[in-house]
Amino acid sequence: MTQNVYDNPEFFEGYSQLGRSVEGLDGAAEWASIRALLPELKGKRVADLGCGFGWFCRYARQAGATEVLGFDVSQNMLARARATTADDAVTYARADLEELELAKEAFDLVYSSLAFHYIKNLDALLARVHAALVPGGRLVFSIEHPIYMAPAHPGWSNDVDGRATWPVNGYLDEGPRTTDWLAKGVVKQHRTMGTLLNILIGFGFTLLHVEEWGPSLEQVAAHPEWAEERERPMFLLVSARK
Amino acid sequence: MTQNVYDNPEFFEGYSQLGRSVEGLDGAAEWASIRALLPELKGKRVADLGCGFGWFCRYARQAGATEVLGFDVSQNMLARARATTADDAVTYARADLEELELAKEAFDLVYSSLAFHYIKNLDALLARVHAALVPGGRLVFSIEHPIYMAPAHPGWSNDVDGRATWPVNGYLDEGPRTTDWLAKGVVKQHRTMGTLLNILIGFGFTLLHVEEWGPSLEQVAAHPEWAEERERPMFLLVSARK
Repeated sequence: MTQNVYDNPEFFEGYSQLGRSVEGLDGAAEWASIRALLPELKGKRVADLGCGFGWFCRYARQAGATEVLGFDVSQNMLARARATTADDAVTYARADLEELELAKEAFDLVYSSLAFHYIKNLDALLARVHAALVPGGRLVFSIEHPIYMAPAHPGWSNDVDGRATWPVNGYLDEGPRTTDWLAKGVVKQHRTMGTLLNILIGFGFTLLHVEEWGPSLEQVAAHPEWAEERERPMFLLVSARK
Repeated sequence: MTQNVYDNPEFFEGYSQLGRSVEGLDGAAEWASIRALLPELKGKRVADLGCGFGWFCRYARQAGATEVLGFDVSQNMLARARATTADDAVTYARADLEELELAKEAFDLVYSSLAFHYIKNLDALLARVHAALVPGGRLVFSIEHPIYMAPAHPGWSNDVDGRATWPVNGYLDEGPRTTDWLAKGVVKQHRTMGTLLNILIGFGFTLLHVEEWGPSLEQVAAHPEWAEERERPMFLLVSARK
């Protein structure tokens, strides 16, 4: 089973205080970039893999989706998602994405925000996602960027000019990475960007957009403390069509 | 015009002594990976952008290509290419890739090895490459990896465990990078991987394979001094179909 770190009380407490937890989608700095990759949602059937508190599920409904299924492994998150969603067209279900079974050709959009880097057998999940999409359906997801995830010791240092520098190593050695983020011993699965994209291509997806996300210059002007986040990408955003 | 560093005597002298210059394609550690991306060449028309000494042009002919055009900006390299090619079906021409005009739908394969990172207006070049390919034609190229190119101070240091570490910064700030490699002041153009892939997608290419190249474990076993090259990718290899 996927490491269910979101049901670790220490992690959940910390996660619940992040901007993206308190403010929802607009509290996530990368949201505007992800939203730009979304297809028209009106009349569409949507699955959200790793739905957390349900912010995106509710957004999809507001944008006109007719049926939204949110899946998450965290009971804590699902409880809050259910408590804050009063909409019969949104269904939340507990599921381990490593094992999740989806109905065939049942969705127009599969969406996932920052969940895939926890998955050990991503090939198998993406095969099931491909089968679950209608022809022409879209997969839009974010994942921690491999540059962000690869290092044995992720953390900033300064180069000889005092410029923030990210210490990349282990990039080509794929596998688990253990870090302390909100709780000790959070395990993520590092894959190169090439591996990730080739998995998608191999299952028959057509890549539509690949974005290595960091804050825009406008965002840094508004949040000067984010400047170092432009030194290396934090997230990878991908849009693909079946 | 593109910086013509290959006609700098100091650079040319150094470059001429590299394995890939002396031994040809098999002297380039990434060649086996690139070769695996090539389509069947028998009966095909091929353009090589940045053909250097002509090693790939001659290879393409041996593999059955009927017509091969090699373009390079370096007079030194073209002189040697011509002196070492006795084949009427191979034509070498001096061209600045920033300005190169290619006949429409005239090629089945456009190939380029480690030249695109010198190009300022890569959008314009790739638009012309797309137009020059027949429908279904292939673009196969290598380029220095953005992780390799981005840093203000590219060079290894060690992390707290003594592991080789590559100092990434400036990744999201695209533009020129000046380094000293074989000669002082070699200028390359840094773009993110996302930008590069989105240019291709935007012109109508379908991405077939994206490989962040470093030596394989087998290559490191044979060349232990290459081990650190697995800590971050050195090259990016891309195959795309029109």
